[in-house]
Amino acid sequence: MRTFFSEDHRLHFPQAELSGGEFVTPYERPSRVEYILGQLKERRLGEIVAPGPVDMGPAERLLDAGFLRFLETAYDEWKAAGQGGEVIAAGMPTRRQRHDRIPRNIDGKVEYYCHASETAITGGTWRAAQSSLASAQAAQREVAGGARGAFALCRPPGHHATSDQYGGYCFINNAAVVAEMFRMGGARRVTVLDVDFHHGNGTQDIFWRRGDVMFASIHGDPLDAYPYFAGYADEIGEGEGKGPTSTCRLPPGTGYGPWAEALDGLIARIRDWGAEALVVSLGVDAYKDDPISFFKLDSPDFLDCGRRIGRMGLPTVFCMEGGYAIEQVGVNTVNVLEGFEDA
Amino acid sequence: MRTFFSEDHRLHFPQAELSGGEFVTPYERPSRVEYILGQLKERRLGEIVAPGPVDMGPAERLLDAGFLRFLETAYDEWKAAGQGGEVIAAGMPTRRQRHDRIPRNIDGKVEYYCHASETAITGGTWRAAQSSLASAQAAQREVAGGARGAFALCRPPGHHATSDQYGGYCFINNAAVVAEMFRMGGARRVTVLDVDFHHGNGTQDIFWRRGDVMFASIHGDPLDAYPYFAGYADEIGEGEGKGPTSTCRLPPGTGYGPWAEALDGLIARIRDWGAEALVVSLGVDAYKDDPISFFKLDSPDFLDCGRRIGRMGLPTVFCMEGGYAIEQVGVNTVNVLEGFEDA
Repeated sequence: MRTFFSEDHRLHFPQAELSGGEFVTPYERPSRVEYILGQLKERRLGEIVAPGPVDMGPAERLLDAGFLRFLETAYDEWKAAGQGGEVIAAGMPTRRQRHDRIPRNIDGKVEYYCHASETAITGGTWRAAQSSLASAQAAQREVAGGARGAFALCRPPGHHATSDQYGGYCFINNAAVVAEMFRMGGARRVTVLDVDFHHGNGTQDIFWRRGDVMFASIHGDPLDAYPYFAGYADEIGEGEGKGPTSTCRLPPGTGYGPWAEALDGLIARIRDWGAEALVVSLGVDAYKDDPISFFKLDSPDFLDCGRRIGRMGLPTVFCMEGGYAIEQVGVNTVNVLEGFEDA
Repeated sequence: MRTFFSEDHRLHFPQAELSGGEFVTPYERPSRVEYILGQLKERRLGEIVAPGPVDMGPAERLLDAGFLRFLETAYDEWKAAGQGGEVIAAGMPTRRQRHDRIPRNIDGKVEYYCHASETAITGGTWRAAQSSLASAQAAQREVAGGARGAFALCRPPGHHATSDQYGGYCFINNAAVVAEMFRMGGARRVTVLDVDFHHGNGTQDIFWRRGDVMFASIHGDPLDAYPYFAGYADEIGEGEGKGPTSTCRLPPGTGYGPWAEALDGLIARIRDWGAEALVVSLGVDAYKDDPISFFKLDSPDFLDCGRRIGRMGLPTVFCMEGGYAIEQVGVNTVNVLEGFEDA
């Protein structure tokens, strides 16, 4: 399997993540990628290829135009307003507030377009987010062109980004754009299977009213874990989207037994539904030593997980999402990919 | 006019306010009070009295029980979870998210009960907020007992706190509780007149469906100023509350001429409506040199403002809210109170 990867991910490295009432070095940091690259090379999974230029067309079809413009200009506008730090939202439009007004003031605009303040925008964020999307798009083309699978080593990740909100380390929803590209290319039904520990609220939101893209996820119970306000069992989509949203929240301490059972349940639903292409939001923070998660998967479990996904026999693009046990991120990620290839 | 004031406000002094992507010393700080006390004494406005104990009964009638319990316990729960800093929300339930689930996790609970991350909770916040409410309640009793007016030197302020959310430096909505106490004491109609630069979204929200309490406000256009997502002209209440919400948003650079015209408009509406008691949310951040506001009132304008309020002839409780041009906060505040007494 080939990997698509851009060095431009380095352009995004905020100094500050708001966590526990303090600024800490972001858990989502460039070194995560080094461990994945190291494992890919050591285990000779396949060629590592730089993507071509990003194609913003599919993203513009799917996402809010004002939001994309905001991501591109926010840092400059923030600095022009004299702000000292990186772009960090100090609030959000919340319950019983207006969700239909976009402030003129840059502080207010940041609040409007953000749903989680741990995520800072830096001067390099927009280019890094575009390069991440470019890798995802190159992987999609690889699979659309006949490859059984491809790996987009995306950074920054994407699954928490909605059509008009960033947060949770995510800016552009790479997996959602890949699903849209499969649809544009003729696949009638596409599933995004999200195995990241955290619920992919962005992907779910983007396809909430769509009957042609199914969102499936296994994630930590949002009563106990970020994103807290999405990922409950009664979230099944609306309108044409009612039905093909299938998520499973699991409690703290969940090990691979119940996790794999949940995965098998989702796989059965994906098959029944008739997906013709698969996008995997590949987070490996279900790992037992992940610092911000609470599942208990061990490294060999990721091999098995990859095998189960591979046995579905669908054309598959893997888009990298989370995983913060830095030194194990590489092993766990490549385990999934190798398991897929072995299946 | 007597002033009610508790030294316990000092128990609330966060080290950090999230502003411009950095932590800064909070604009809302204890020294604001020293300048007000200095002016009150110098100009012999009247006795300064410590309030009796807080009566949580009226607050419990008006506000969410879970929210009050949260304010009381959040800091201890946060620290018990091993968080290093003060309690600062890293997100909020925002648009298209769930507003009906209260997380079990303390991070999530903080996000649920907060609407603005600049505001930290410290170990002393709950006691300080209660002492602030105690001052407001003592001032209400003074006026209910026959005094023409009384000043509650509240700190922390209250007008941004809703029935179940803190933020904007506010925890318990003192002015709203005072209005409720006037109602409990027999006043048929009560108005909260909010002259703080920032829209009193908390007060408006608390009385949104109430026909017996009118919220009136002059404030910076939320397209350009905090709280950004409340304070637009079409916000007129719902149900029985439809009508007695009357707010006026004004643009950057507004001087006293148009400001006073807006005030006169509100005063006419309050008279027409037939308010029997008045609560003034007294912020003085409409002042020209306020560091986080954009109106252009000068110090003598506050005297005139106080006179106009005084001429309404209503029993009046002033509750201190914002004002961040620290050294001028005392002069401007006492100008309003002296103008009221002179009317």
